[in-house]
Amino acid sequence: MVKVGIIGATGYAGQELVRILLGHKDAEIVWYGSRSYIDQEYASVYRNMFQLVDAKCMDDNMDELSKQADVIFTATPQGLCASLVNEQILSNTKIVDLSADFRIKDVATYEKWYNLEHKSPQFIEEAVYGLCEINREDIKKARLIANPGCYTTCSILSLYPLVKERLVDVDTIIVDAKSGTSGAGRGAKVANLYCEVNESIKAYGVTTHRHTPEIEEQLGYAYDGTPLTINFTPHLVPMNRGILVTAYAKLVKDVSYEDIKAVYDKYYGKERFVRVLEKGVCPETRWVEGSNYVDVNFVIDPRTKRVVVMGAMDNLVKGAAGQAVQNMNLIMGLPEEEGLLMPPMFP
Amino acid sequence: MVKVGIIGATGYAGQELVRILLGHKDAEIVWYGSRSYIDQEYASVYRNMFQLVDAKCMDDNMDELSKQADVIFTATPQGLCASLVNEQILSNTKIVDLSADFRIKDVATYEKWYNLEHKSPQFIEEAVYGLCEINREDIKKARLIANPGCYTTCSILSLYPLVKERLVDVDTIIVDAKSGTSGAGRGAKVANLYCEVNESIKAYGVTTHRHTPEIEEQLGYAYDGTPLTINFTPHLVPMNRGILVTAYAKLVKDVSYEDIKAVYDKYYGKERFVRVLEKGVCPETRWVEGSNYVDVNFVIDPRTKRVVVMGAMDNLVKGAAGQAVQNMNLIMGLPEEEGLLMPPMFP
Amino acid sequence: MVKVGIIGATGYAGQELVRILLGHKDAEIVWYGSRSYIDQEYASVYRNMFQLVDAKCMDDNMDELSKQADVIFTATPQGLCASLVNEQILSNTKIVDLSADFRIKDVATYEKWYNLEHKSPQFIEEAVYGLCEINREDIKKARLIANPGCYTTCSILSLYPLVKERLVDVDTIIVDAKSGTSGAGRGAKVANLYCEVNESIKAYGVTTHRHTPEIEEQLGYAYDGTPLTINFTPHLVPMNRGILVTAYAKLVKDVSYEDIKAVYDKYYGKERFVRVLEKGVCPETRWVEGSNYVDVNFVIDPRTKRVVVMGAMDNLVKGAAGQAVQNMNLIMGLPEEEGLLMPPMFP
Amino acid sequence: MVKVGIIGATGYAGQELVRILLGHKDAEIVWYGSRSYIDQEYASVYRNMFQLVDAKCMDDNMDELSKQADVIFTATPQGLCASLVNEQILSNTKIVDLSADFRIKDVATYEKWYNLEHKSPQFIEEAVYGLCEINREDIKKARLIANPGCYTTCSILSLYPLVKERLVDVDTIIVDAKSGTSGAGRGAKVANLYCEVNESIKAYGVTTHRHTPEIEEQLGYAYDGTPLTINFTPHLVPMNRGILVTAYAKLVKDVSYEDIKAVYDKYYGKERFVRVLEKGVCPETRWVEGSNYVDVNFVIDPRTKRVVVMGAMDNLVKGAAGQAVQNMNLIMGLPEEEGLLMPPMFP
Repeated sequence: MVKVGIIGATGYAGQELVRILLGHKDAEIVWYGSRSYIDQEYASVYRNMFQLVDAKCMDDNMDELSKQADVIFTATPQGLCASLVNEQILSNTKIVDLSADFRIKDVATYEKWYNLEHKSPQFIEEAVYGLCEINREDIKKARLIANPGCYTTCSILSLYPLVKERLVDVDTIIVDAKSGTSGAGRGAKVANLYCEVNESIKAYGVTTHRHTPEIEEQLGYAYDGTPLTINFTPHLVPMNRGILVTAYAKLVKDVSYEDIKAVYDKYYGKERFVRVLEKGVCPETRWVEGSNYVDVNFVIDPRTKRVVVMGAMDNLVKGAAGQAVQNMNLIMGLPEEEGLLMPPMFP
Repeated sequence: MVKVGIIGATGYAGQELVRILLGHKDAEIVWYGSRSYIDQEYASVYRNMFQLVDAKCMDDNMDELSKQADVIFTATPQGLCASLVNEQILSNTKIVDLSADFRIKDVATYEKWYNLEHKSPQFIEEAVYGLCEINREDIKKARLIANPGCYTTCSILSLYPLVKERLVDVDTIIVDAKSGTSGAGRGAKVANLYCEVNESIKAYGVTTHRHTPEIEEQLGYAYDGTPLTINFTPHLVPMNRGILVTAYAKLVKDVSYEDIKAVYDKYYGKERFVRVLEKGVCPETRWVEGSNYVDVNFVIDPRTKRVVVMGAMDNLVKGAAGQAVQNMNLIMGLPEEEGLLMPPMFP
Repeated sequence: MVKVGIIGATGYAGQELVRILLGHKDAEIVWYGSRSYIDQEYASVYRNMFQLVDAKCMDDNMDELSKQADVIFTATPQGLCASLVNEQILSNTKIVDLSADFRIKDVATYEKWYNLEHKSPQFIEEAVYGLCEINREDIKKARLIANPGCYTTCSILSLYPLVKERLVDVDTIIVDAKSGTSGAGRGAKVANLYCEVNESIKAYGVTTHRHTPEIEEQLGYAYDGTPLTINFTPHLVPMNRGILVTAYAKLVKDVSYEDIKAVYDKYYGKERFVRVLEKGVCPETRWVEGSNYVDVNFVIDPRTKRVVVMGAMDNLVKGAAGQAVQNMNLIMGLPEEEGLLMPPMFP
Repeated sequence: MVKVGIIGATGYAGQELVRILLGHKDAEIVWYGSRSYIDQEYASVYRNMFQLVDAKCMDDNMDELSKQADVIFTATPQGLCASLVNEQILSNTKIVDLSADFRIKDVATYEKWYNLEHKSPQFIEEAVYGLCEINREDIKKARLIANPGCYTTCSILSLYPLVKERLVDVDTIIVDAKSGTSGAGRGAKVANLYCEVNESIKAYGVTTHRHTPEIEEQLGYAYDGTPLTINFTPHLVPMNRGILVTAYAKLVKDVSYEDIKAVYDKYYGKERFVRVLEKGVCPETRWVEGSNYVDVNFVIDPRTKRVVVMGAMDNLVKGAAGQAVQNMNLIMGLPEEEGLLMPPMFP
C-alpha cells in the first residue's frame, strides 16, 4: 500500500486527488495538508467527503511528511514546492508537483513568465516532465515529477503527432483554448463569483498566459529540441470542469485524412487515456468529464491548407489530479491505469 | 459474474446504469436494449462510452433477453415493463423495473394517476418495492423489484424516521422538491431545451405529480398501513443532476434536536448510503453528485412547532440507476455496496 | 428632471438602479456612491456601463448628497442607512432605503433577527413600507421609504389576497422560496464562487432567515394587525436572477378556482406590475427576467384542502431596484411605471 | 408610426424583435407571423409577453402582409424569404431578411454552402448587406436588406479596420468564435437539450460553417474587392446569449498599440454601437447582454507578430434583432438608435 501525502489538499485539484485516491486500491492518504484549514475536519471543507474521510487538515511540513509518505503531491501555488523541497526530502520520498515549479527547464524563462524567483533551481534538471504518454520511461525512474499544466496537457497531446512527424509549419501554430471555471481555483475573488462567470465567455491572459512557454518547450522537444513560438489564448467558460483546445496550423504538404489519422494512431493507438475519435466527430468536454481521458481529433481544411486540431479533457483529472496519479502509478511500479478507469460521467 | 441486460439503455437512467456497471466487478452487461437506436453503436449515442462499450443497441425482446441475463433492468417509459413481463420471463431471470409499473399496490390508484391501463396486474402483489434501506430482506427474496422513483426515494428517506416513530402529524406533511433536468429525460422537447431551462426555476405538476401516491403509500406503511395524504410539489432546477427535498410537518410533541437526531440515527446509523449530517448542516446536491448517497438533516422550528426536513441525492444514482444496482446486489447475494462506492464528484 | 444619488452603487442592486435609471426619462443620476471604489471610474467596475456612465465613484457623505439630490437610494448593508440618516437630511431630500433598516416597526424584532443595534429608531415610525401595490397612497406622502426585501415582495404579493380575504388559515402558511445567486451580493466569498453554486441547490437560513419577520408583519397587517407566524425557507438556485415562491396554506372553506381567481383579480386586476396568470399556468422566473413584473398563480388541492400559491419575479428589479424606482416615481409625482416598462428578456 | 410585420415571430430572433419593438416609440407590430402556431396567442408561446402582446399568431402570407406593413422582418429558415418575395411585395413594403438568402452575392457560393437552390436570384443584386456601420448610406436607400449573420457581424466588425487599412496578412486570418445556445434556435433537438449543452463546450461545423463565405465576402470588399479565404470555427457555449470572437492574423508591418488603436478609432470613434475598449480590457459577453453593443479590442503579440482581435456582442440583438431594427430605422428615416439604447443587463 503506497502511502500518500497531499500538500494543498483543499484546493480543487487537491480534492480531486482525494476523490481519485479513495478509489485507488493500492494507495492510502496519510496526510491532508492545508495551511488554510489546519486542524479542521477535511470533510467540513469538502462535505462530499463526509463519512468518507475521517481526518483533519495538517500543515505543509514537508520534511516530516517525507518520512511518512512514499509519495507527496504538491497541489499548491507556484513557488511553494520549490521553496520546500531539498535533497533529504527527495531521498526519502517521491514528489509529484502539480505546480509549475519544475516544468520549465530554463530558469530565466520560468522567472520571467511567472514573475518569481526560483528557490530550487538545482532540482530542475533532474525533474521529469510528467506527461505520461510521452515521457513514460523517464517518469518511472524519477524522484521529482513536474506534473503538466491543464492547458498544456491538452494542447500538447492534441498537437504532438503533427509536430513530431513534421506535418505542420510550427511557426503557424495557434492554440485557442477554453476552460471550465474550476481551473481558476477556489480563492474568493469577485471575478470568479457565480454571477460574474455565469452567462459569459471571455479571453484572458492574451499573449501572456503562463502555460505558453510550457507548451512551446515541450512541443519544441518533439520538433527539433528548441522551443517553438506560438500563440496561446485561454478562455473562461461557464462550466465547472473541462478544457477544449482548438488548434490551427498550416500543413507543410498535401496529406489526406488517412495520412494524419495514421499518425495519430501511431502515437496513441495503444494509449489507454488518449482516444482518437472517429472521422467527423468533434471532441466535447461532456464526454470526458470526471475521467482521465483526452479525446482528440482533427479536420483538414483543403481551402486554407490548415489542419484544425481539437482536444477535450477534464482539467481536474487528466489536467491535474488524474495525471498526477498516473505519474504516481508509474513511479511506484503500479499498473498505470489503477484508480483511473472511472468512465466519464454524463450528464 | 452476473449477466445483466438493460432495456432502455439509451435514456439517461439507462446510461447511468452502464456507467455504474462498468465499474462493478461482479457484473457484465450482455444486452444494451434501445428500440430507438437498434443496430447503432452504443458509443455513438453516448460518446463518453467510446472505447469502453463495444456493443450495438438491441431491441427489447424480453423473452430472449431473459434467457441470456441473470438480471434485467427496465429503464423504460411507464407501461412497457408491465406489457412485456410474463411468468416465463420471471422464472428465467430477475427484473429490476425502474418504471412505475409495479410500485403502487392498488391498481386503480396506478391507473388513475398514470392514466394508463395496467397490463400485468397479476404481478403487482409479488413485486417488492426496492427501497433497500427499508425493505432489504424482502428484496433479497424477490423476482421482481419495483425500483422507487427519484422524488420518492428522497422524500421517503427524508421523512421515514419521523413518520415511523409518529413524531409528526402526518396530515400536515408538505414536500417541496427540486430536481435537476436529467429527471425530465432525453426526449426532444422544446420545454427541455437549454435556453428554456437555463436561468429559470418553476414548479410543475402541482397537486398532480405521479410520485405523490407512491410517497403516500410508502409513508403510510411506515405509519399505520394506509396511505397518507400529502402535498407534493416538484420544481425544475437549471442543473443536470440532483434532487433536493424540503419537507414540512407539525411535531406532535415537544422534542429536542437530540431526540430527533436519535431517531434518525436509529434508522440510518448503520446505513452506508444514508448520511445524517451534523447539526446545522443543510444538505446540498453538489455534495452527493455522481454517488449513491442520500444526505439528510432537519431543523426544529420552535416558533411554529414544525420540523423542516431536508434530503439531497443524485436523481440518476440513488434516485434511479444506483439504487437499481443496489437492488441487484441484494437479489444476487452480492455485497450491497459493490460498484456503488464512488465518492461524490465535486465540483 | 429628478436628481438621484445612489449610495452603494457598485453592489448588484445598485448597479441595477443605474441600469434602470439610465432609461428613465425624468431622472438623472448625480452621485454614484461606493466606499469600496472611491475615485474609480464606475464603468471600470461594471463594464456594461462603458461609454454610458462617465462618472467616478464617490463616498457615502449623505449630508452633502442630500443637498444635491432629490432622492437618495441606499443600496447598502443593514445598518448603514440608519447610521447616516438624520432630520436635516430628511428635510432636504427623500430616501428610498433598499436595506432592512426601516422595514420592521418593532425595533426589538429588528435587533433580534438582524443582531444589530438600530441607530435611528426615531425614524422607524414615519418610514413607509414601500410595497407600492399595497401602500401606494402612503408612499406618495413619505420622506423615507423602506424598500421591501426581495423574498418578502414575492411572498407577500403572492399571498396577500388570500390573507386579506381570510380565505386561508394563517397558522398553516409555509413559504418555500428559491432565489438566483445575485441575491447573495457581490462580496468575494468562497460559498458564492461559480463552482460552488453551479450544479447544486440548497436551503439556507432554515427557520432563521431575516426576511421572515418582515413577511409576518406585513401579512399580519393584511389580516388582523398583528404579525403572523409562518415558516419561511429560502433556497439558493444556480441562476443569476429570479425568485420563485411556492407557498402552502389550508383553505378555511370550500372555494372554487373562480372564487380565488376573483379575489386575485380584485387586488391585482388593475395593477400594472402584478400579472395573475391564466388557469393552469405556473409562474416561471424566466418570464419575468429583467422586468418589474411579478407573476402569480395558485392551484387548489381538493385532496388536502390546501391552496398552493406561486409567485415569480426578478429579485433585482421588482425585488430591489425596480421597486425602488417605482417608489421614487410615486414620491416624486411621476407616472408610477416610468422607466419600468421594459419587457422581460428571454432567453 | 411604422407598421411592422414579422414572419417567424416565434423563433428566438423573432421574439427578440418583439421585445425590442415593444420599446420602440415609432414602431407598431401589426403581424405576428408563425406558421407553427397559427391562431394561438403569441403570449402563450412566449409567456414573458403576457399582457404585453394581445395578438394571435398569423400565417406567412407575405403578399397580404406587404399591404399592411411598412416593413417586414423575415426571421425564418434559409430559403423561405427567397421563395416568398416578389416585385409586387417589394414595391409595397421594405423587407429586412434575417436569414441568409440575400447575404451572398454569388448565387453559386450560396447554393454550395447552404445546399439549397436560390428561388429569387433576381433580387440578390439590389439587396443591401445590412451591416449598418459599414453600409449605412446604401441601407438608407434599400428596399431589401440582408441582415448579417450573428457570427459574421461580430467577426467582420472585429477585423474590419485591420483589413481595410491593410495592416494584416489576410491569408493568415483565423476566426475562432464562441456562441451561446440561443443561436441554435428553438427547434426540439436532442443536441440542444439542457443536459446535453450544459457543462460542456464543443466546436462544430469545423471548416464548413455557413457563415464562412459571408465573412470572406464582406472582408474581401474591405480589402481588394474579392473574397478572402479564412478559417472560421464556431463553438457552442453553455449560456443563453452572447458571441465572442477571437481572431488571429499576422501583422504586415511593425505597428504599435497606438497605431492600431487609432485605426479602430477612425472607424468606430463615432459609432454608437461599437465600443473600442480601453487598453488591456478583453471583451466579455456579459457586458453586452441584452444590448445592441459590440465591444472590440486587440492585443499585439510581439513574439509572433500577430494581432489577436476580440469582439463580444449579444447574438440575438446586434447579431439579429437589434441590427434588424437598426436597419429598419435607417430605411425609414428614423434615428438610427431608436429603440436600441437599452443598457446591457448584468448579471
